[in-house]
Amino acid sequence: MTVPSNSPGADLFGEPVPLPPQRFEARLAGTLIADGAGFETRAVPSLSVTLEGVPGDRHAGHARPADSRVPWYPRGTPIRNARQLSIVAPDELAEIARRLGVPEVRPEWIGANLVIEGVSRLTRLPPGTRLHFAGGAALAVEGENAPCRHAGRAVGDHFPSQEELDLAFVRAAKGLRGLVAWVERAGDLLAGTGIDVRVPEQRLWTC
Amino acid sequence: MTVPSNSPGADLFGEPVPLPPQRFEARLAGTLIADGAGFETRAVPSLSVTLEGVPGDRHAGHARPADSRVPWYPRGTPIRNARQLSIVAPDELAEIARRLGVPEVRPEWIGANLVIEGVSRLTRLPPGTRLHFAGGAALAVEGENAPCRHAGRAVGDHFPSQEELDLAFVRAAKGLRGLVAWVERAGDLLAGTGIDVRVPEQRLWTC
Repeated sequence: MTVPSNSPGADLFGEPVPLPPQRFEARLAGTLIADGAGFETRAVPSLSVTLEGVPGDRHAGHARPADSRVPWYPRGTPIRNARQLSIVAPDELAEIARRLGVPEVRPEWIGANLVIEGVSRLTRLPPGTRLHFAGGAALAVEGENAPCRHAGRAVGDHFPSQEELDLAFVRAAKGLRGLVAWVERAGDLLAGTGIDVRVPEQRLWTC
Repeated sequence: MTVPSNSPGADLFGEPVPLPPQRFEARLAGTLIADGAGFETRAVPSLSVTLEGVPGDRHAGHARPADSRVPWYPRGTPIRNARQLSIVAPDELAEIARRLGVPEVRPEWIGANLVIEGVSRLTRLPPGTRLHFAGGAALAVEGENAPCRHAGRAVGDHFPSQEELDLAFVRAAKGLRGLVAWVERAGDLLAGTGIDVRVPEQRLWTC
C-alpha cells in the first residue's frame, strides 16, 4: 500500500513526521458503577479501582470471556480484559441525542463508568493515551467503544414511543459513544476533580 | 492546538479522514525466553503463553513494579504489565548494527522474546495492533520499546573493544528496537509459522 495523499509529510530521511506528545487538563465530572442486575450504571461519589478494574462492577477482572466484539475468538474464550471501564463525554452524548431526536442520552443508560469533560472528540483519543487522576489512579485508553444494539436498546427503553432506536443508536453513536480503558495504576476516581491527560506521539503506519 | 500541515485531510464534516484497517501475513522467525539469571534470552522452538505472558520469563505477570520508564509513578508501585513480551525485526537489528559499526546485534542480547519477519518498520506498528499466531495465541501491541542503556550495555559486552556502546545504542536504536506487547489470548507461539497482523483504523488526534 502506498501512503495516501492525506497522510503526514515525510522528513529528509523518508520517515513520516510524527505528531508530538500532547498533555492537558480535563475534568472527571461523574463516576458510576454497574453493580446491579443489568447493564446500566448508577452514580456514586467516587470509585476505588484496582488493576482488575472497578471492584463489584460487571466488567471487572483481569480476563473476560470473548464476545461478539471479537468474533475471531471462540465465544467464551478467556481473553485479557482491556475493557474494564467505559468513558463518555457530555458533548458527545448530546450530539447522539440530537441525531436521534430524543431529549437526552444519559451516561447511566449506556453503562458508562466515567463522565469526562474538557476533551474535544473524546471518542477519538488515540489508543495508549494515559489518564492520570487526582486520586492517584491511572487508566490507559484501549480505544473507541463501538456502539452496539445492546446499548441502543437501553436508550430505546427510555423512549418507548420511538421505534427502532436500538439500530438508530448504532448509526448515530459511531465515533461519539466514548472509550473503553483499563487500569494501569490502582487508586481513587473522585467525581469533580481534575485529570492529567497524556496523549502519546502519533504517526500513521502503512504496510 | 491547530491541526498541523502534515496531518491528514478532513472530510466534508470537518472530521479527519482515517487510514482504514490493514491486514497482512508475517512470519514468526524465532522464539526466545529470559529464564536465566539475567536480561538476555535464549532461543527455544516454541513458547506457550498465558494471559500473564511467558511462564518462567522474567517479564511475566499481570502486574509489574513501576520502573524508570514510568517515572510519574513511585518506583516499585504495582502497575498493569503491558510489557510482557519484547518483539524485534531482523532488518531493524541489522540497521542498528550498521549505525553502531558492529557486525551484528542479536535478538537474545537485548532480551527479545519474538523475532518477526515481513513487517516493514515493525517498531512503528500502532498501539492496539493485534498479532494472531498459527498456534492460537494472540498479542496486542502496547507500543515502541524505547531503547535503554541497559540493553545498550548488553550489546557492548559483546564488543569490548568499542567504547560507550551503551549510550550509542540508545541513539542508534531509536525507532528500531522493536515493540512490547501483552497477551490477549493464550496459546502457542511456534517458530517458523505464520502471523495474521491486524492494524486498526488510524487517525491523528489533536486537542
